[in-house]
Amino acid sequence: MLKELFTQARVASRTLARANRNHALNAIKKHLAAHIPEILKENSIDVENERQKGTSAALVDRLTLTEKRMEGILEAIDQVIALPDPVGRVLEGWRHPQGMQIEKVTVPFGVIGMIYESRPNVTVDAAILCLKAGSAVILRGSSNALNSNRALVKAMREGLKEAGLNENAISLIDSTDRSSVTELLTARGFVDLVIPRGGAGLINHVVQNAKVPVIETGVGNCHLYVHRDADLNSALKILMNGKTQRPGVCNALETLLVDQEIASAFLPRAVKALRDAGVEVRGDEDTQMYAPGVVAATEEDWSTEFLDLIIAVKVVKGLDEAINHINTYGSQHSEAIVTESLKAAEQFQNEVDAAAVYVNVSTRFTDGFEFGFGAEIGISTQKMHARGPMGLREMVTIQYRIRGEGQVR
Amino acid sequence: MLKELFTQARVASRTLARANRNHALNAIKKHLAAHIPEILKENSIDVENERQKGTSAALVDRLTLTEKRMEGILEAIDQVIALPDPVGRVLEGWRHPQGMQIEKVTVPFGVIGMIYESRPNVTVDAAILCLKAGSAVILRGSSNALNSNRALVKAMREGLKEAGLNENAISLIDSTDRSSVTELLTARGFVDLVIPRGGAGLINHVVQNAKVPVIETGVGNCHLYVHRDADLNSALKILMNGKTQRPGVCNALETLLVDQEIASAFLPRAVKALRDAGVEVRGDEDTQMYAPGVVAATEEDWSTEFLDLIIAVKVVKGLDEAINHINTYGSQHSEAIVTESLKAAEQFQNEVDAAAVYVNVSTRFTDGFEFGFGAEIGISTQKMHARGPMGLREMVTIQYRIRGEGQVR
Repeated sequence: MLKELFTQARVASRTLARANRNHALNAIKKHLAAHIPEILKENSIDVENERQKGTSAALVDRLTLTEKRMEGILEAIDQVIALPDPVGRVLEGWRHPQGMQIEKVTVPFGVIGMIYESRPNVTVDAAILCLKAGSAVILRGSSNALNSNRALVKAMREGLKEAGLNENAISLIDSTDRSSVTELLTARGFVDLVIPRGGAGLINHVVQNAKVPVIETGVGNCHLYVHRDADLNSALKILMNGKTQRPGVCNALETLLVDQEIASAFLPRAVKALRDAGVEVRGDEDTQMYAPGVVAATEEDWSTEFLDLIIAVKVVKGLDEAINHINTYGSQHSEAIVTESLKAAEQFQNEVDAAAVYVNVSTRFTDGFEFGFGAEIGISTQKMHARGPMGLREMVTIQYRIRGEGQVR
Repeated sequence: MLKELFTQARVASRTLARANRNHALNAIKKHLAAHIPEILKENSIDVENERQKGTSAALVDRLTLTEKRMEGILEAIDQVIALPDPVGRVLEGWRHPQGMQIEKVTVPFGVIGMIYESRPNVTVDAAILCLKAGSAVILRGSSNALNSNRALVKAMREGLKEAGLNENAISLIDSTDRSSVTELLTARGFVDLVIPRGGAGLINHVVQNAKVPVIETGVGNCHLYVHRDADLNSALKILMNGKTQRPGVCNALETLLVDQEIASAFLPRAVKALRDAGVEVRGDEDTQMYAPGVVAATEEDWSTEFLDLIIAVKVVKGLDEAINHINTYGSQHSEAIVTESLKAAEQFQNEVDAAAVYVNVSTRFTDGFEFGFGAEIGISTQKMHARGPMGLREMVTIQYRIRGEGQVR
């Protein structure tokens, strides 16, 4: 039963809006720095456990903390301290005809639940962003990082205490039991918002089971459409950047759509460049015709987020078919067109249903730092509250404040 | 199976952002006006059915349409036409260091589901607001208004058709089966947002069963706290307005909290005035002492939205206890303090967790029209996306649009 933990988080949250949160972030940084040896020791237990289970090297690497990674985590805290306070901004204000003043002010959410997979840096990242945004956070990391997370949360709570804040502003669900996830997802009245960070399986589990509000993040089946009026050199550059610069992230490309008018000019070059970079190309019949030797793409490939050096390629009749394909198979994350045609650019941006729609730019830019937000809790792929990169500005809610002298209706 | 209806709504939604929606709203108004006799005839069948079932006069009245009420509905369409288009607003724009332009633009949600109780005017209200906001709407009214709703939706779809729009932009779930509600609430990928409008039972059913994003609306357990530094005449005026001007609405008062320092001066006057207005007063022990003959309040009364001429009254030690009581029992809708103290006003507005927090003003002002939004689809009592009165500006989502000349990371 986590009800006591939830209640304590709620109590702590009441005082955060007006606390000196930057002061507390500094104290947290200090205590994390002081505990690096202990944190690395606990992390090595988690890492060793995974090694013995035979977990893949890539996943073990994601789990591993080092001196250098800890330095990166501490630097990120300084960056968050330097950002403006998202709480207490007066977004608008106006006068009611009867004379009272109405103001729309940003206020903290209250209690935010974070459910995430193995990377222990998310533990610090999420906690400091929630604190900066004036909300208490309840962290539920994955069981294979539990020792690391315990050590990180312990140090952060020491920092809160030193700064005179309620240490329950940051708490960890110290359980590997799946029922604790369910409890967090159904804690209506205790948890104001849950943000899942992880793969499609985790996000889907959360959405299917949550009774509290959720912001879905991070699933990206992104497309590049090369229009008939494209600059093909530019198209090739954007394609290679989107697919190969960092294939494991959500804003990487998964499908290439090529206009039939330029397919014979573009596809052989594109497929050669992709293969030279080690990318497996899966194409429809037309693609196979223009670039012999390409593997046949299956229906499933169109909706798959490969997160790997694999790309699905389809030749389309034109803009309408491209837009229709994207709106059918895409995950409403990031979509791009390469074209010199103003009309095509406009139609693409008007009709594609996604968080970020690019003209002649790589989809890899969908990112809170690239967008200039200075931080990012995740990339929202849903339409409520936050869409696209979610920074501190979206980690608050609003309140209307009205002052008058006895006005009644 | 409603999948075909959902798919048709999605197809219709794709064209709405750039359609002449005001032209369509005018056509809808024309066709509703032309069909008034037919609509009233169908409505009279619903009304007669309810009468035979022995439904209360108040509920029958809510269900009833008249010539005059139809006129009001048509006038409301003119008001919505006159409002600015919420779609296509560039909220922000900036340049990325690599030179491309990023714009944050409002775009329609897509498909909005509305689940609501008997008042057939909501059928038109919700449909025209969704259309104005560029979204297709799927309406699920209550079974006792089905004949009325069919006639209203038929006329509106004729209007859409005449204006050259896809008539599936407005559709009615023509079923009284509860499973159709469940189907709407779980239509992930088809429905972008569901807005329930009705009593606590309906809202709770929706929240517990929805797998699609929901905006909770309308449950209001609102408090008035009379602080020790209050102008008692002003307090009395605000109390009577909040409780008696329209007791059946969500922004009406349900509980009065009185500071012990002014209890002996205020409570006898307040209780007398309430009783003179026909209000049943239920008080804690202190209240019963200051105003003999008051019924004892139960624990349940503190969390009850009476929506009737009943009020719960409690004497509190001071501001902290008042805030704590409100944050414990309130529904985060509208809360008010009466005080001349700046410090008390600030603390109350900073610490009360609600959509609208008033100082020396009646809670009855929490309303999209009073706030100057020109329309209102509901009053959100949750913290995501929209909080408080939800107007057209909150009935859209955003999209980032990025244009460049081949930029890559």
